[in-house]
Amino acid sequence: MTSKRYLIIGGVAGGMSAATRLRRLDEHAQITVLERGGHVSFANCGLPYHLGGVIEERSSLLLQTPASLGSRFGLDVRVRTEAVSIDREARTVVARDLTTGEDSTLDYDALVLSPGATPVRPPIEGGERMLTLRDIDDVDAAMAALEVAPRSALVIGAGFIGLEMVENLVHRGLDVALVELGDQVLPPLDPEMASPVADRLREAGVDVRLATQVTALGADTARLSDGTTVAAEFVLGSIGVRPDTSLATAAGLELGPRGGIRVDDMLRTSDPHIWAIGDAVEKVDAITGEPRLVALAGLANRHGRLAADAIAGRPVRVREALGTAVVGVMGLTVAATGWNEKLLRSRGRDIRIVHTHPASHAGYYPGAEQMALKLIVDAATDVILGAQGVGGEGVDKRIDVIATAMAGGITASELADLELAYAPQYSSAKDPVNMLGYVAVNALEGLTPSIQWHELDAAVDAGATVVDVRTAGEVADGAIPGSLRIPLDELRSRADELPAGRLIVHCKVGQRGHTAVRLLAQLGRDAVNLDGGYLTWKAGTASRTATEAEALAA
Amino acid sequence: MTSKRYLIIGGVAGGMSAATRLRRLDEHAQITVLERGGHVSFANCGLPYHLGGVIEERSSLLLQTPASLGSRFGLDVRVRTEAVSIDREARTVVARDLTTGEDSTLDYDALVLSPGATPVRPPIEGGERMLTLRDIDDVDAAMAALEVAPRSALVIGAGFIGLEMVENLVHRGLDVALVELGDQVLPPLDPEMASPVADRLREAGVDVRLATQVTALGADTARLSDGTTVAAEFVLGSIGVRPDTSLATAAGLELGPRGGIRVDDMLRTSDPHIWAIGDAVEKVDAITGEPRLVALAGLANRHGRLAADAIAGRPVRVREALGTAVVGVMGLTVAATGWNEKLLRSRGRDIRIVHTHPASHAGYYPGAEQMALKLIVDAATDVILGAQGVGGEGVDKRIDVIATAMAGGITASELADLELAYAPQYSSAKDPVNMLGYVAVNALEGLTPSIQWHELDAAVDAGATVVDVRTAGEVADGAIPGSLRIPLDELRSRADELPAGRLIVHCKVGQRGHTAVRLLAQLGRDAVNLDGGYLTWKAGTASRTATEAEALAA
Repeated sequence: MTSKRYLIIGGVAGGMSAATRLRRLDEHAQITVLERGGHVSFANCGLPYHLGGVIEERSSLLLQTPASLGSRFGLDVRVRTEAVSIDREARTVVARDLTTGEDSTLDYDALVLSPGATPVRPPIEGGERMLTLRDIDDVDAAMAALEVAPRSALVIGAGFIGLEMVENLVHRGLDVALVELGDQVLPPLDPEMASPVADRLREAGVDVRLATQVTALGADTARLSDGTTVAAEFVLGSIGVRPDTSLATAAGLELGPRGGIRVDDMLRTSDPHIWAIGDAVEKVDAITGEPRLVALAGLANRHGRLAADAIAGRPVRVREALGTAVVGVMGLTVAATGWNEKLLRSRGRDIRIVHTHPASHAGYYPGAEQMALKLIVDAATDVILGAQGVGGEGVDKRIDVIATAMAGGITASELADLELAYAPQYSSAKDPVNMLGYVAVNALEGLTPSIQWHELDAAVDAGATVVDVRTAGEVADGAIPGSLRIPLDELRSRADELPAGRLIVHCKVGQRGHTAVRLLAQLGRDAVNLDGGYLTWKAGTASRTATEAEALAA
Repeated sequence: MTSKRYLIIGGVAGGMSAATRLRRLDEHAQITVLERGGHVSFANCGLPYHLGGVIEERSSLLLQTPASLGSRFGLDVRVRTEAVSIDREARTVVARDLTTGEDSTLDYDALVLSPGATPVRPPIEGGERMLTLRDIDDVDAAMAALEVAPRSALVIGAGFIGLEMVENLVHRGLDVALVELGDQVLPPLDPEMASPVADRLREAGVDVRLATQVTALGADTARLSDGTTVAAEFVLGSIGVRPDTSLATAAGLELGPRGGIRVDDMLRTSDPHIWAIGDAVEKVDAITGEPRLVALAGLANRHGRLAADAIAGRPVRVREALGTAVVGVMGLTVAATGWNEKLLRSRGRDIRIVHTHPASHAGYYPGAEQMALKLIVDAATDVILGAQGVGGEGVDKRIDVIATAMAGGITASELADLELAYAPQYSSAKDPVNMLGYVAVNALEGLTPSIQWHELDAAVDAGATVVDVRTAGEVADGAIPGSLRIPLDELRSRADELPAGRLIVHCKVGQRGHTAVRLLAQLGRDAVNLDGGYLTWKAGTASRTATEAEALAA
């Protein structure tokens, strides 16, 4: 029996997971890894933090070396080696040593493509000055550019990675401007959830420019679409990535509708001897069943291992992708899973929304922080379609629990039944995830109907009255214009003061509003709860006002 | 239509959840709450922390008052009022005002019993000096006893609440002894998981006495079963609770086999007009389907609400109970869900065990802490039966995720597919929960068979050789006696040095052991991995040694 020859193109995340798993499955195989860059198996998610000095040592980013992978796993790892072409018929790959320029031809029985994704670059004057962070070479270049001690930095793109860049440049002491084409930061979130993040960035001194484009980069400035100029000695871009499909395309492999390599549910491409994984590959969306690009390290690693299993003939079925993600921004934790409201509404999906603002742990124990949670539910089936969280401690925990519930087919109402660990420093007897379930049950069963912050104006135009059941002290800190104010504890005795017609009740976060709606409904009134209360309304309308103000200024 | 009369006995957690939910469902009902103690709706899980001064203000523990519940929910809340008897035929309860001694008779259409559980007291000489913490009166008494500034404290019972008491007394600066009848702290955990907790307590200066009983309490000392005496000016007990079924029993309601009130899956007792919830009630165990006592605040609150729904005629089905719990001990977080190995083995259940020691977040990002995780899996079905975690940051998150997975019917192998939020300060690209899944797959599919720390001696006696694949530096810090040492990176070239027969491979935590087993298996060797590696073996054997040493000393 001759040993199998396995060839892996791309030596980070998915590629290296595939290579090491293949070795564990087949001690006798020849396993070769080609990596265009100078390093394999580095911590790509740590790159922004090395820039910011949080991860002080560059060596901390280098988890493995070709030598360590050779001695432990018997892998033939070749860095600065580019796969320049695939001959599918002959099952060979031409590999070019980027140092010497020499080409060599490698046979394979199975080929794994893990080329990743390429940062998108804006086609603007001076655009070549924009740095990006894909690999160690990039971080070295960025560190060199920071050596000359620039005072100003511009980050283009306010996605998850863009905000990590901002945080780290602020941490380094630079004056940072953030320019984002969309009308909010963190496009995967809905605007009322993203708005507090933008506020936090501004509080930290970041010059946040939404609904704005960079039109040209000068030597140390940037010109923006609103006609202004910002200082930009150092420019870092994170406006998205594009699947790196050049090699696959040249080899005639099929792409999917979103421009990624198409694979089946065993990660095999249109060629039965070639598998593909990672950011270059289209996943199947867990909510819609449609092809989707999801550039996340967790999936890349998971799929690398599964591709190895598939190659070794083991049974494999790739799960559909939810796309769970988290980012830390200036002390805030922001996390999301599944789909957001914007996208689902744009598709006409009938959904229910729940906003809450629970404490991270029991309010009577010191240090509890308020978070904002959002749950998005299929109106017909009660299936959870997505969730978002913004706050401090414990946001990642709640989104992880919800992502797990989604994977397990637990419905929104059933979140009420989850048994989550409670002691006062960790949670509440009714965990925030349980509370989402409680609210979801009340909505599902029609006990407490709710409306969203963005539906309020239309409801008022249609004749509804807004009833604010908060205390006078809370109202003094800000209120919805035109609202009638009756504190909840007086509502029972003062219900006859309320005008005829629909009543939209709200408190600060929605909980007292719920009690008020139940009271009013049983008095025969048409009452609905403003979901998420004043806090969600304020965040939502603030996001609009900011965008409109900036649009006006443009 | 006359309004319904709802009577609730017990005004904490479940009782008050039932009362407020009933009000939301029925604005017109007469709802009366009787509470024997002086306070309702207090933070019972916060009591130890008030003792320790962590929750400084006593008022922080009092979440609601009879007045606030009256104005907001129209509840008639009567404190220091004891329900002394139930006339089920007449549907009346005799309530005694404990201040005046006067009795009154209250009618009900539906009665909810939420009497809670009574602390168990040891029948020993001087036992009446042991304080317990059930309610605000108890915490007041304990605070008064601490006013005289005792220097020494004894805590009896090393369960979750006992350890909270220890932590808080240490926090107050007392010299604390902890006496536990069992041979480990935290009986819901397995010994190798509890052992690091005992170590941490000892490091904090606590005099931990396992497999020991208090035989008598003197004026400021305690005599122990090992013949020694410890200083004990202040004595606090937490040796368990017993369902408070006195009223239910006197009324002729059925009890279950564990001594709690028996209810159906709508929380109704054997009387169709009486519901019961909380610590006094038997739950149905999620793993065995058998009746079980679980005294947890989350279930009490949840069941209070469900009982109200049931009374109001809404559809209700109580879920079976997993019993998820967490405790903070001297900077450690300890959490568990489901069943432990000890109990499952004692029942002869065929199980697989996975131990891991992952970092709380990416190792390359500062501040990562190593945790110990344990997953217990049904060998035939791959169903998760339980999990335990000990460590710092993020232990509660992982146990919550696993508890959610269990509720959703996600199997051990499927944990590998969970999409959990990853950025380097929150997790790893392969989250610790994913890693448990990876190991579980390898065990399920027979790729890497493993043995447990407590099976090692028998395997060696049967002729197996222990192979330590750690580095020389690691071995220098401690090793399993008699092991052969070949670092993993040399194993491929030195495999011929290994003796014939079964090989038990181990590294520090199990991961390199897995790679070594795969290598050796493919060389035709009979190799198994020591699950959890040296760390689990060390914790497990240390727990035995400590117990044996103490047993010897006794």
